[in-house]
Amino acid sequence: MTGHVSLVGAGPGDPELWTMRAVRRLEEADLVLYDALVDARALRRFTRAQCFCVGKRAGRESVRQETIHRLMIRAARAGKRVVRLKGGDPFVFGRGAEEALALAMAGIPFEVVPGVSSAIAAAELARIPVTHRGLASGFLVLSGHDADGFDAGLNAVQPNVVSLVILMGLGARGDLAARLAARGWSWGTPAAIVCGASTPDEWIWTGSLAEIGETELPGGVAGVIVIGDVVRVREALVTATSREHTADEVKYGRS
Amino acid sequence: MTGHVSLVGAGPGDPELWTMRAVRRLEEADLVLYDALVDARALRRFTRAQCFCVGKRAGRESVRQETIHRLMIRAARAGKRVVRLKGGDPFVFGRGAEEALALAMAGIPFEVVPGVSSAIAAAELARIPVTHRGLASGFLVLSGHDADGFDAGLNAVQPNVVSLVILMGLGARGDLAARLAARGWSWGTPAAIVCGASTPDEWIWTGSLAEIGETELPGGVAGVIVIGDVVRVREALVTATSREHTADEVKYGRS
Repeated sequence: MTGHVSLVGAGPGDPELWTMRAVRRLEEADLVLYDALVDARALRRFTRAQCFCVGKRAGRESVRQETIHRLMIRAARAGKRVVRLKGGDPFVFGRGAEEALALAMAGIPFEVVPGVSSAIAAAELARIPVTHRGLASGFLVLSGHDADGFDAGLNAVQPNVVSLVILMGLGARGDLAARLAARGWSWGTPAAIVCGASTPDEWIWTGSLAEIGETELPGGVAGVIVIGDVVRVREALVTATSREHTADEVKYGRS
Repeated sequence: MTGHVSLVGAGPGDPELWTMRAVRRLEEADLVLYDALVDARALRRFTRAQCFCVGKRAGRESVRQETIHRLMIRAARAGKRVVRLKGGDPFVFGRGAEEALALAMAGIPFEVVPGVSSAIAAAELARIPVTHRGLASGFLVLSGHDADGFDAGLNAVQPNVVSLVILMGLGARGDLAARLAARGWSWGTPAAIVCGASTPDEWIWTGSLAEIGETELPGGVAGVIVIGDVVRVREALVTATSREHTADEVKYGRS
């Protein structure tokens, strides 16, 4: 009897943003292969499965992609219920579709369980909507990790029309900002960096495209860059909200 | 004592894709104002609050946006815990940020609870990743509802580089396809329509940009259009997966 694999999105960080289906799959799992961004302590509360971190952690190499495929396939062939728990959403960058293809080609039954994507939620938790009437009629999501892919995506879009969300671009943020400016984006375009969205390490910076490169970041936290007039909505929301009513006070208790 | 408002994303349809935080807010709520796309029967299982549909339903006008603002503000001022439950994610189109601004300006404490956005998940549930190595280095999300906004977004992007996801564009799909072609998108570009993703009415069509306009759709179901080479990943996944192993058989029981 063959097992199966669930490719599950774990959202931006806080386990409260896991979906009910994600929780159910974890409860039923025999084996969980999780990314470094996933809250490992929370994971133990929801599953009795064997749990292995296959993501990149400080000072250690991540497990090779082919090894992850092999681990999933071998466990499923042994009848195990496998959860592959990925940060954010499984099909936004992160090679989820490559994992799905490996499973499909091996004849392993699998499903994809969407998660809350940081491409939208990181900005949102900082009170920045990726779209807003009169400010942005759409949004473009690019990865800053792969310079060629970033350039291709960037060349494809005119400056300052849609909101731009850059994942995995913090390390190269000065370079990315320069590339944007070279393609006509105004240096004064509002910009935001949101690190550790929904986690206790949440850190939010706003400024302009020109300032992104010089901004010092907290160490060791993943983050998202948002560029466009929608960043101003955050200012409007935070200014309009009286001191007693800021987001920090409206936390009704984390799990 | 002032209450508060949670702007909560309900995801693409299936309540199993609600987040744990969404469920918790519903359990604690006194009043729920929900969109037409939300599963009203499921809602009753999770809350004892008063529930009102404020979305557009067949044959009836939707409640005016200003009325929704007034209802939320009045209830919160009366000390109520209000959940504004929106389809998909609150900050992707859908006027969530306008609601947040109205609350902030009225001095009402509020939070935003991200949801699984159909902009990513509808395609994903049809096994189409919005990004994929070698096929798309990013994705652009536009609304087809507002022709001017759509044109602005479309004019901003070069054809056939990033994946294009169109929300609220089914009614005008032939027109939208023609606009894409007029801007240089190849008529042969792979395209998909996914209606009612994650619901019992899920319906998936794939073809080319040229065929979108003539495709007959199931009635009364919301849907998403995806355009780009990533649509071919679905074919690869479905072809590689043997008949016994298709997604339909790997449903482990809906709630």
